[in-house]
Amino acid sequence: MEPTLHPDCADLAFLLGTWRGEGEGEWPRGEPFRYGEEMTFEHVGDPFLLYSQRSWMLEDGAPLHFERGFSRPAGAGRVEIVLAHPLGIAEVAEGTLEGTTIQAASTSVATTSTGSPVTVLRRRIEVHDDRLTYELHMAMHEVAMMRHLCAELTRS
Amino acid sequence: MEPTLHPDCADLAFLLGTWRGEGEGEWPRGEPFRYGEEMTFEHVGDPFLLYSQRSWMLEDGAPLHFERGFSRPAGAGRVEIVLAHPLGIAEVAEGTLEGTTIQAASTSVATTSTGSPVTVLRRRIEVHDDRLTYELHMAMHEVAMMRHLCAELTRS
Repeated sequence: MEPTLHPDCADLAFLLGTWRGEGEGEWPRGEPFRYGEEMTFEHVGDPFLLYSQRSWMLEDGAPLHFERGFSRPAGAGRVEIVLAHPLGIAEVAEGTLEGTTIQAASTSVATTSTGSPVTVLRRRIEVHDDRLTYELHMAMHEVAMMRHLCAELTRS
Repeated sequence: MEPTLHPDCADLAFLLGTWRGEGEGEWPRGEPFRYGEEMTFEHVGDPFLLYSQRSWMLEDGAPLHFERGFSRPAGAGRVEIVLAHPLGIAEVAEGTLEGTTIQAASTSVATTSTGSPVTVLRRRIEVHDDRLTYELHMAMHEVAMMRHLCAELTRS
């Protein structure tokens, strides 16, 4: 039986579902690249959404990145995000929710001893009907903040 | 086509699969409780394992907890863990791998503004053939470190 959406999640309900599409990325010391991506937001009736993302290189389907975590409503117009990344990164981000636009910036990026030296992540996610677009800005130790990824996905 | 396990993951291969079982938990200001649990470790051919966990109350099946993240080999006898928790927690843990026993302690527990004030997490995971047991110790702001969870799961 499908659980009832927790009322605190009502303002995040526009994210629910599975999204698929393509994006493009760039980062110093590498060629710009295009990737395929799938993103899922689910709920279990509790006051958070479960989030799962995977992306792959378009040319050969090789796995590119994974994100796993949770989105939490945090009072009127506020959203919190906690994410784990396979690069050895655990991220906490907080930000605003205006209509169907989320803008969040990391408040903590903790890395493992051998993890990637990411220092800041900033996300803008926008949904219009069944179309989700996002931009991810990133800074790393010795790399100033820049736009790393942008993508357009469609709800399936 | 099933990808080939990354050679760096060979020492973590004993975790691969889906595990199901039951556990018991305790925490101050609440009755001891029993829970059902399912845990999955997968790989995609990259030097990390994808980890997904869910647990539920035995009496009514209500969702109890979720963990999502990654385990990373980090050189001989070392393992790194990055996890997101729906309580608004992003955890980095590191520790040792001896045979099929992992002992890891958090090096960072970052929380969102409205997240649970967890300060330290310590895990011991032990696998013998198709039986996985673990203990989780936890400390919170104003709660000293104590054993919070222990469980026994079977590989299905």
